[in-house]
Amino acid sequence: MHVPDLVGIFVFGITGALVGVRKKLDVFGILVLALVTGLGGGFIRDVLIGETPPAALQDGRYLVVPVFAGLITFFLHPGIGRVERLVNIFDAAGLALFCVTGAQKAIEHGLSPLSAALLGTISGIGGGVIRDLLSGRVPVVLRSEIYATPAFLGAGIVVAAALEYDATWVPIVAAVTCFGIRLLAIRRGWNAPLPRNP
Amino acid sequence: MHVPDLVGIFVFGITGALVGVRKKLDVFGILVLALVTGLGGGFIRDVLIGETPPAALQDGRYLVVPVFAGLITFFLHPGIGRVERLVNIFDAAGLALFCVTGAQKAIEHGLSPLSAALLGTISGIGGGVIRDLLSGRVPVVLRSEIYATPAFLGAGIVVAAALEYDATWVPIVAAVTCFGIRLLAIRRGWNAPLPRNP
Amino acid sequence: MHVPDLVGIFVFGITGALVGVRKKLDVFGILVLALVTGLGGGFIRDVLIGETPPAALQDGRYLVVPVFAGLITFFLHPGIGRVERLVNIFDAAGLALFCVTGAQKAIEHGLSPLSAALLGTISGIGGGVIRDLLSGRVPVVLRSEIYATPAFLGAGIVVAAALEYDATWVPIVAAVTCFGIRLLAIRRGWNAPLPRNP
Repeated sequence: MHVPDLVGIFVFGITGALVGVRKKLDVFGILVLALVTGLGGGFIRDVLIGETPPAALQDGRYLVVPVFAGLITFFLHPGIGRVERLVNIFDAAGLALFCVTGAQKAIEHGLSPLSAALLGTISGIGGGVIRDLLSGRVPVVLRSEIYATPAFLGAGIVVAAALEYDATWVPIVAAVTCFGIRLLAIRRGWNAPLPRNP
Repeated sequence: MHVPDLVGIFVFGITGALVGVRKKLDVFGILVLALVTGLGGGFIRDVLIGETPPAALQDGRYLVVPVFAGLITFFLHPGIGRVERLVNIFDAAGLALFCVTGAQKAIEHGLSPLSAALLGTISGIGGGVIRDLLSGRVPVVLRSEIYATPAFLGAGIVVAAALEYDATWVPIVAAVTCFGIRLLAIRRGWNAPLPRNP
Repeated sequence: MHVPDLVGIFVFGITGALVGVRKKLDVFGILVLALVTGLGGGFIRDVLIGETPPAALQDGRYLVVPVFAGLITFFLHPGIGRVERLVNIFDAAGLALFCVTGAQKAIEHGLSPLSAALLGTISGIGGGVIRDLLSGRVPVVLRSEIYATPAFLGAGIVVAAALEYDATWVPIVAAVTCFGIRLLAIRRGWNAPLPRNP
């Protein structure tokens, strides 16, 4: 049991369910999207590290969380108009939590700093990529917004700090940094440079 | 060699090839779709369990089956009009076989009951999800039909029975239950509840 | 460090970045596509073989290559009109390199000849499939062109030769065969047989 992971699974589960609501899926489609979005990033992380079966399959409690997130969303979701905004905010929270816990887990498994930062980034963006692929959306990581960068930054902070010392506040600072930059990018409509058009 | 797995690979291979026929792919595209649809669910299952290389890569005979399914379909497929119906029926059979063998394999590997039921479900729906993603269809698991539920039910029966005793007829009952419910859902157009629209 | 793998990652990274340019993604979207396209095939190969963490996560230098490929492409890409042609050529080179190194790695891990040829093919087509799925293109492997076949042929040459002797020129001949057939298929518009339409 790992509380930040559970919270990350919960918020990603909510984004999956909200996308399901938006796509007018039925209750089971919504639960499936909540499950794959909540668990997808961690599955990819654990398979790449070689820790199989993934944590979420070794402890049944991990499975209850996204189902719960899906059911709450099914019954209490807001009007369709406000769904996309909520998806983005919960998605930013999940991104922040998973990039940090992914980087921590990679360090524990002895990956090099650069690889650990990449694995943290993959863990962060994995759930959203699977959600968007399955539901036929352009993956948020590819849309013209700051997305993978805050995840890489959050993971990088964890990795950089791990080289020196192992304080409790480091992952919190890292997660808040990722979450904050991502939210700012959403609010202000920040965009990264586009290729020139010769 | 595991006969139910081989039959599951065969019927899923047929669905992949039929979708390829429908999408007017050439013979190689059809064979690729037959291969990934037939083998995809088992690959995901074995990678998640940590049994690598997957069974289908350890025994070449597993690879012959989907190629055979693809070639048969290429030469003997019916008119395009009747393809979608056949896809659904063979897909239901593959779903039923894989949810059961996936749950059995998960139990053998010591997964908890809930995790084993989830892994069975993932094995069942995996091949179809990959087929639909690659061919640009809305994944059948997300469409407004009873799909993941019979798989979870079939896997659940295997798991529940495994807690008590290990009779041969249990997986058969489980597979027939999943197959039957799925077929009924297709025939009668059963739908699950949709989210309300506030 | 494995030079053919690095070259394969580089050329696949360029195809990913070029597709990103074509889809008018920003610099981060382009880097993400370069990374997943360059590393995707090798990740799938190593996870299926059971060699985790994948080679690219164990040696940070593997990660620098696709980022470099992405940045070069971002700054030096040609006009949009000529992008698709370049994607195809670099993609053919990546296909040729990965089908060969994938088959070699599978043989080293003791897979049977047929399985090794399939794993080589999967390694070759994996990066392009992920690139096309993420960017919303019809996967090149399914389009009406000779694609998986030269990869299977290249992998097959490696496997067949490995049964007899282990000469340096074998993988080169295999890669050149795959690359040449694929290029010819692109230039001449070769197509494979389509299913008849009863």
